[in-house]
Amino acid sequence: MSTITAAYYRGNKTFAVEEANAPPPAAGQVQLRIAYCGICGTDMHVYHGNMDARVGLNRIVGHELSAVVEDLGEGVTGFAKGQKVVVRPLDHCGDCPACNAGHQHICHKLKFLGLDTDGAMQELWNVPAHTLHVLPDDMRLDHAALIEPVAVACHDVRMASVQPGEDVVVIGGGPIGVLVAMVARDAGGKVVISEVNENRLAIAEKLGFDTVNPARVDLKAAITDRTGGKGADVVFEVSGTQPGVDAMTAVAATRGRICMVAIHATKPQVDMFQFFWRELKLIGARVYEPQDYDKAIELVAKGAIDADTVITDVSPLGQIQQAFESLDASPTALKSLIKVGELA
Amino acid sequence: MSTITAAYYRGNKTFAVEEANAPPPAAGQVQLRIAYCGICGTDMHVYHGNMDARVGLNRIVGHELSAVVEDLGEGVTGFAKGQKVVVRPLDHCGDCPACNAGHQHICHKLKFLGLDTDGAMQELWNVPAHTLHVLPDDMRLDHAALIEPVAVACHDVRMASVQPGEDVVVIGGGPIGVLVAMVARDAGGKVVISEVNENRLAIAEKLGFDTVNPARVDLKAAITDRTGGKGADVVFEVSGTQPGVDAMTAVAATRGRICMVAIHATKPQVDMFQFFWRELKLIGARVYEPQDYDKAIELVAKGAIDADTVITDVSPLGQIQQAFESLDASPTALKSLIKVGELA
Repeated sequence: MSTITAAYYRGNKTFAVEEANAPPPAAGQVQLRIAYCGICGTDMHVYHGNMDARVGLNRIVGHELSAVVEDLGEGVTGFAKGQKVVVRPLDHCGDCPACNAGHQHICHKLKFLGLDTDGAMQELWNVPAHTLHVLPDDMRLDHAALIEPVAVACHDVRMASVQPGEDVVVIGGGPIGVLVAMVARDAGGKVVISEVNENRLAIAEKLGFDTVNPARVDLKAAITDRTGGKGADVVFEVSGTQPGVDAMTAVAATRGRICMVAIHATKPQVDMFQFFWRELKLIGARVYEPQDYDKAIELVAKGAIDADTVITDVSPLGQIQQAFESLDASPTALKSLIKVGELA
Repeated sequence: MSTITAAYYRGNKTFAVEEANAPPPAAGQVQLRIAYCGICGTDMHVYHGNMDARVGLNRIVGHELSAVVEDLGEGVTGFAKGQKVVVRPLDHCGDCPACNAGHQHICHKLKFLGLDTDGAMQELWNVPAHTLHVLPDDMRLDHAALIEPVAVACHDVRMASVQPGEDVVVIGGGPIGVLVAMVARDAGGKVVISEVNENRLAIAEKLGFDTVNPARVDLKAAITDRTGGKGADVVFEVSGTQPGVDAMTAVAATRGRICMVAIHATKPQVDMFQFFWRELKLIGARVYEPQDYDKAIELVAKGAIDADTVITDVSPLGQIQQAFESLDASPTALKSLIKVGELA
């Protein structure tokens, strides 16, 4: 066993950074030495205590990681020590109706690594070999920590089938919103981001996007004007709010596609008449499939994701508590990374 | 000018049957001698006074018709006097974003014949030649009056891409619901109809469908049981109710498609989380396109639509008032026809 440093969520907005023993990788597992791990909105929900029933009070969180291969468990082939990798943190059951239909990523008994199991906020982490994607040798490991959320965006854009020249509206300019916007732009979409937070609007504009603040101007009129009366061919609802749901049907073109990215904890009122009258489509999209990781790696490698603007701060693992507190309080942060090890 | 009999909606649940002058067909028009015309749910809305602002108080309604060609206006080719025909009662502008994108059937300025113009509850009716579909010579004209609503069902089933062997739930067993069920069955779907009205359940069962009354049994449990835990691959929401909207997400399989057929006048609460979590799709579907008429004619011709069960009564044009009153009061009627002329 190696002795490592790990960060445990202990409830009540508290992380404890402690020494731990790292077991060797079991059969079928790969041991990773973690470089960076991003803080996801879901981790922030854990921090706030909203997921205690699911994660417990002794959980190592973290799933937006970059790493190098440290060791291979018995029977693992296709990987080599020292390779740069990322993890697609989904472990499926293989025997439910979703798995049987080929939709393993939304398995009915899905284990999400870093929530339902311990995650990447530790120096060494053992994961099933089937979750790994190998990175190009020259990819920066801080940039690679964005691949998991970029893969979410790649899945959303693929599910919505964004085509070159299409008018796209992204409702909500947080971390996932701007990544969806960048992936949609790479697919050829003409993207407008709708966001009410002025700091996030400034970041969206720095990233080169046309923006609308629906608290200041009529979003529907703004999109109607920009599209010659047609409306948006594709809308991404990333806000998780009733106004966002109202806007998604209002700005969509006839036969427009609306991709539901956000988690709506309560049931919003939806203008079903518009779905009928203008033959709109609503497309739910959750996490990612292997090809979305391939695409995300390609986009980060070619610079289509402005990683240096998206990553607003990096803290060492020993300061994870302060990093969560700061991100929770900050009006300007977009993506915060934890530097878990000393690899880069 | 010919003298004909026509039925005028005059407001306050009243029709007046009067003599009228029938003008000859204008250039580009075809004059039809109407055989039968079905009473649509929309006509019932007119009768109740809900559409007075749109239709006025001197409107000849009716769009579910069968007819023979009586005369051709100047410049019309491709039709011959005496041919049996039906009308696709949509007149588009040709110059809006929907028309420009090829979606003429949901034109932003669509005129619906029989609502925005006079309709088929008259012996002779002039319509644009582009709205006609020719019938097989041996088709019964009473059965042919079902083609318009069958085309709605064909459009819904096509938009939802029902595949052979798929589990299908139709929520709402009224006239459109049972037609959707029959078209989905013809496409190879294994169809269950959910309906709370016992008379309609009896008709659905007479038509050979598996049924569930969600007022008596748990619909989600019933569908889960019938599908081995998977849920319905395709759900048609035809009820226009909040319980129907609740059921549509509850019974759908992971990655299931939900087709929004109903008109929801108010905004229901929708379980958006389920769209995200199980990657559901919602597909709005309105009226029909030419290929849906072709399919509807094929299905009626080959007997895939049990027309004699769906058509529950036929009244002469002179008794249109009683026919609306009776349909409005009847718990057992499904599709009521008016025999407009003496053709069959």
